[in-house]
Amino acid sequence: MPYELHYWPMIQGRGEFVRLALEESGVPYVDVARRDDEAGGIAPMLDRLSDPENPRPPLAPPFLRDGAVVIGQTAAILLYLGPRLGLVGDSEADRIWTHQLQLTIADAVNEAHETHHPLGVGLYYADQKPEAARRAESFRAERLPKFFGYFERVLAGNGGETLVGCSLSYADLSLFQLIAGLDYAFPKATRAALRDAPRLVRLHAAVAARPRIAAYLASDRRVRFSEDGIFRHYPELDP
Amino acid sequence: MPYELHYWPMIQGRGEFVRLALEESGVPYVDVARRDDEAGGIAPMLDRLSDPENPRPPLAPPFLRDGAVVIGQTAAILLYLGPRLGLVGDSEADRIWTHQLQLTIADAVNEAHETHHPLGVGLYYADQKPEAARRAESFRAERLPKFFGYFERVLAGNGGETLVGCSLSYADLSLFQLIAGLDYAFPKATRAALRDAPRLVRLHAAVAARPRIAAYLASDRRVRFSEDGIFRHYPELDP
Repeated sequence: MPYELHYWPMIQGRGEFVRLALEESGVPYVDVARRDDEAGGIAPMLDRLSDPENPRPPLAPPFLRDGAVVIGQTAAILLYLGPRLGLVGDSEADRIWTHQLQLTIADAVNEAHETHHPLGVGLYYADQKPEAARRAESFRAERLPKFFGYFERVLAGNGGETLVGCSLSYADLSLFQLIAGLDYAFPKATRAALRDAPRLVRLHAAVAARPRIAAYLASDRRVRFSEDGIFRHYPELDP
Repeated sequence: MPYELHYWPMIQGRGEFVRLALEESGVPYVDVARRDDEAGGIAPMLDRLSDPENPRPPLAPPFLRDGAVVIGQTAAILLYLGPRLGLVGDSEADRIWTHQLQLTIADAVNEAHETHHPLGVGLYYADQKPEAARRAESFRAERLPKFFGYFERVLAGNGGETLVGCSLSYADLSLFQLIAGLDYAFPKATRAALRDAPRLVRLHAAVAARPRIAAYLASDRRVRFSEDGIFRHYPELDP
């Protein structure tokens, strides 16, 4: 039975980190909510979230179903998929380190989201624009360069091409997505920060050029960036 | 060689989730920055964060040192310690599920932190009080009950006493700390939400009564809650 990914169909969001791992590996999977037949849509996802028969329910999408196993939390999904998809090393040390990097990428993703919703997700962006401008300012000036500097240092310490060992890991795919998302949301700030992070530029290009990833990015399966997702381009937040 | 925990010495913060696991297990460990001899203080921590000899550096505290292994990110530290301290089940399914719960607790911790720093960590609370009041309002009204409802459901689905299986896991200890922290920061909102979560009340009491945890909580090793940590009691944020 193929893996089932359950996530909001109209955004990349956190589900995209899982999609990239599945796409790179070439395994069959079903992006359930994006199916265009009667088995698609978000109803199966919502049903599973509230399924009283599942004693181990996720709190929120994305979640992965692998037969009887249902796993939520993006980083936990990748922890589970990594060895199965050949996207993490064999040693415990490599696995913990790859996961640590994934969690740091997740922190950056959370902070990118906070730039447009500093007062919380219960309000629209339009209702928190001045606050978003202040949060985005500190994100651009301090946090984004800090995260990029860190990952540049890690790449340099590992020879410059991949984050862990000699092979691509799910953390590399996730770092590609973080860079792509920040470049969409904050093109000026991101390109300025990337001038000091040549290895991040190379990693982003190398991942985008991998055959399966390139085919995926050019396909309809790749949802477009938009102002409904985590990475939103509001020009006033990137002056 | 005992485990070394490196974390800010004056706050519970994210390091507390690691301290609780180490204390419950009874293994020897050194809370390096809290040593009161010349080997203590935060200099060793800062030195290790910027250590050019470590190709796998953490971005920030807390981090754990186990001989040559250095691990950052609270959830990754607990992923590593869980099997070693007997604080997680043996099966992969139990380990992934316990970790998924830990990541959801981490999300709640992040959101609790955002209530007093919605404009970012580069500004003092005093410089973002109106924004904090708005963020805290939605946290109290929507997010806190949502997280509590979720963990209550998980406890109910597992028999009510522990989150995973029949034995205490690191996720139980972390859930104890989340409840304790929220009760300190938002006593009114937390106690109101706990009226609908009797299993959370029981878990909190059961963890606090465990012999090693009770001894720890009564000791000088337990840093007090304060307005420098993640969980801060500002009465105006819990009216």
